[in-house]
Amino acid sequence: MSERVAAYLAGEREAILERLLRLIRFPSVSTDAAFAEGMRGAREFLLDRLRAIGLEDVRLLEPATPVPGGQPAVYGAWTGAGPDKPTILIYGHYDVQPADPLELWHAPPFEPAIRDGRIYARGASDVKGSTTIAVETIAGFLATEGGCPVNVKLFLEGEEEIGSPSLGALIDTHRELLVADAMISADGGGAAGAVPRLNIGCRGIASLQFTLRTASKDAHSGKVGGALRNALHEMARLIATLHDEQGRVAVEGFEGDAPPLSNAERAEAASFALDEAAWYAEFEAAPFGDPAYSVTERTTLRPTVEVNGMWGGYTGEGGKTVTPAEAHAKLTMRLIPGQDPAAAQEAVRQHLLRHAPAGVALTFHHRPGGTRAFTLRADHPLRAAAAAVLRREKGGEPAVTRLGGTVPITTLFQERLGIGSLMFGLASSDEDAHAPNEFFRLSSLDEGLRLWPMLLSELGRMRAADFRQG
Amino acid sequence: MSERVAAYLAGEREAILERLLRLIRFPSVSTDAAFAEGMRGAREFLLDRLRAIGLEDVRLLEPATPVPGGQPAVYGAWTGAGPDKPTILIYGHYDVQPADPLELWHAPPFEPAIRDGRIYARGASDVKGSTTIAVETIAGFLATEGGCPVNVKLFLEGEEEIGSPSLGALIDTHRELLVADAMISADGGGAAGAVPRLNIGCRGIASLQFTLRTASKDAHSGKVGGALRNALHEMARLIATLHDEQGRVAVEGFEGDAPPLSNAERAEAASFALDEAAWYAEFEAAPFGDPAYSVTERTTLRPTVEVNGMWGGYTGEGGKTVTPAEAHAKLTMRLIPGQDPAAAQEAVRQHLLRHAPAGVALTFHHRPGGTRAFTLRADHPLRAAAAAVLRREKGGEPAVTRLGGTVPITTLFQERLGIGSLMFGLASSDEDAHAPNEFFRLSSLDEGLRLWPMLLSELGRMRAADFRQG
Repeated sequence: MSERVAAYLAGEREAILERLLRLIRFPSVSTDAAFAEGMRGAREFLLDRLRAIGLEDVRLLEPATPVPGGQPAVYGAWTGAGPDKPTILIYGHYDVQPADPLELWHAPPFEPAIRDGRIYARGASDVKGSTTIAVETIAGFLATEGGCPVNVKLFLEGEEEIGSPSLGALIDTHRELLVADAMISADGGGAAGAVPRLNIGCRGIASLQFTLRTASKDAHSGKVGGALRNALHEMARLIATLHDEQGRVAVEGFEGDAPPLSNAERAEAASFALDEAAWYAEFEAAPFGDPAYSVTERTTLRPTVEVNGMWGGYTGEGGKTVTPAEAHAKLTMRLIPGQDPAAAQEAVRQHLLRHAPAGVALTFHHRPGGTRAFTLRADHPLRAAAAAVLRREKGGEPAVTRLGGTVPITTLFQERLGIGSLMFGLASSDEDAHAPNEFFRLSSLDEGLRLWPMLLSELGRMRAADFRQG
Repeated sequence: MSERVAAYLAGEREAILERLLRLIRFPSVSTDAAFAEGMRGAREFLLDRLRAIGLEDVRLLEPATPVPGGQPAVYGAWTGAGPDKPTILIYGHYDVQPADPLELWHAPPFEPAIRDGRIYARGASDVKGSTTIAVETIAGFLATEGGCPVNVKLFLEGEEEIGSPSLGALIDTHRELLVADAMISADGGGAAGAVPRLNIGCRGIASLQFTLRTASKDAHSGKVGGALRNALHEMARLIATLHDEQGRVAVEGFEGDAPPLSNAERAEAASFALDEAAWYAEFEAAPFGDPAYSVTERTTLRPTVEVNGMWGGYTGEGGKTVTPAEAHAKLTMRLIPGQDPAAAQEAVRQHLLRHAPAGVALTFHHRPGGTRAFTLRADHPLRAAAAAVLRREKGGEPAVTRLGGTVPITTLFQERLGIGSLMFGLASSDEDAHAPNEFFRLSSLDEGLRLWPMLLSELGRMRAADFRQG
């Protein structure tokens, strides 16, 4: 059955690519209200498409009580497989990261350019490419077989890139609609390429923005220099306390009750043979980080505090002899299993307050949200189904891997609906997601249009009861 | 004679104020090419005015060979006092600092607003107010007396706020035209107010901008966080090494051969009774700086390294989970007598290179210029003339003070033409020069229109030979 669907999708490939490019052209940047029109365009395109392929109950989902900064999700279902078959929630997201710094793009970020077998555009890899594969796989089953091997509920989020502020409330509001046996995520890469990989976990995230103030106003650096605190000097001193020289987080209590790495976790991390030299070479960067851990461990099983933005004073052309009174920093933390987002955020906040000398005032801007790390339990049927598909398609036992990034939906569905998730995206880690000149490989599009039909067929061999016993 | 001129100027006061407001309305920001039109407007206004009041040889001065970023000076002379009278070069500048951050201004920075006896606008205090006083004083003598008590050469610079990149070359080109016995500067404040002050020196300046790079491109902080250097963390660590906790510069070799403070310098610094608590209260800031020195010493006789701007990563609305590969900083240094600008700049550059770990690349953008500190020698006739005027107008012996800021022309004229300078501006230190909501007091305008005629008359009692013997 999956072979027929894959053959159909291969035949439809040009039309599918055209639809993917249309979706990419909507500048759906969720973090910036200036892009509201791009967000709306992407939603309407998807609503139209889900209706066209024959999904039921297609609509936007929002929480009963609006959440500031929240964005509606796109929903559609097909439940014709019957109650004995598993119901699989399929996740993707239609929002993208900002395209800044624009001047580093070789072409406009929302005008997709195909070069050397790659689609260059913001959102191509993260995650409109894999989201399109998910949608078109369902379309393929419905077009060729008149139905899917499992019941499907397609859920396309609009606020993944801003930490999903309203997603918890949205799930609570629509709990009945979203009930499922398991979830497959188009976000969270690794299914593409020669090495078979099972993505079974991801780090959590929390964020913190703060303003540092040393005086009530900026001043002439000639007049006051030497006797008035400079906010940029103080910001530098403060940020410098967050890590030691090897990049280890130096924040007391940051890891909270998180257990140390287990032997099983370290063995799983080692199951994927990362070429560390090649990893650093891609960034033209020197090796860095805690030498007690491998690069895979550092980036997936160890927590971080990262300054994503820092600024203050005069940043325009030429110079300005000012002693700035104010400086700003945006921080995010990546969290490991067992770390609580609110506690981690508070530990960093307390650290900053403790290290700010008298005369330096901090104002914190807490951003809502925050997500715990997620791990799919070892005996979950999703692992077996995906492993079978990967063995068949690529040969060999798949490596068990984790994402260093965060797919909040995996944690939220575990916590709120009690279901496990498998990340089965086709993005590759070298595709410059969140950076200039992001791209998605056309070969990954083709591969996804083979793997996803196989995975749904494999899950169709299972019973709903298999998931409920796990 | 000066009484008649002062009376005339008092009668002309509304017309003088109107001309000052017209000059302020030209947004003459020299550091940013976007303001070229404002620069041109200010120049043409001044050229017209100098011709109208009867100066000779009115024109723009530029170096023989153009210097990148340079701006022409406005020049005009009156030499009818004869060769026995001193020739006084009168200095002002028509360029202003950028108005950023615009959002902190209560009214548009180039639309002067008069409130509570103050003119609020960018450039009102620094230094279009005092420049206007100088021009109108000459106008007053020419209108009422048919001539000035001394020969005058009016020199209005256009690049003071960017470190005067072409001024040295400009002076060399026009050396014959600029020959004089001494210089009085409208820039460099302190003549206004109840306490009589003689400004006899200023700190020097040098600057340095650099870019820090940790990788060839920005990356997703989830994917790389923990194993790739973050340019903002490294920038913070590096900037934090420049000072100790009390703000003392921690750069090896920074002071070079500069001698320690002399007893005479410390006594002069103590002659001005600064209310340190009030000084900090104005900024709502805590006391800060090297406890071995008074605030007056810290801000005028001790050197600084100041970060005027620092930035990198995502600084827009919301968040972006990026590990930035690049960060930037703009630095200026204030220099004390005996410190060499190029050597100070190089000491900071070497410090930064020495403290940057492997894997952190620095690129420096040297800005041309750099100015040594200036001191008017103790027995210079300008000191006696100005002291006499201040004693007569305000009563009591004037305090001998220095500027913490830099008036490059004082150093340049000493070095290139061998003449000493007195700073006799009417700006006050609380007028938020270089900051939002800069203002100039109308009372200082009135005071300047009395003091400047007195000072020119006092100098007119001296012979040119008095200056050449000094």
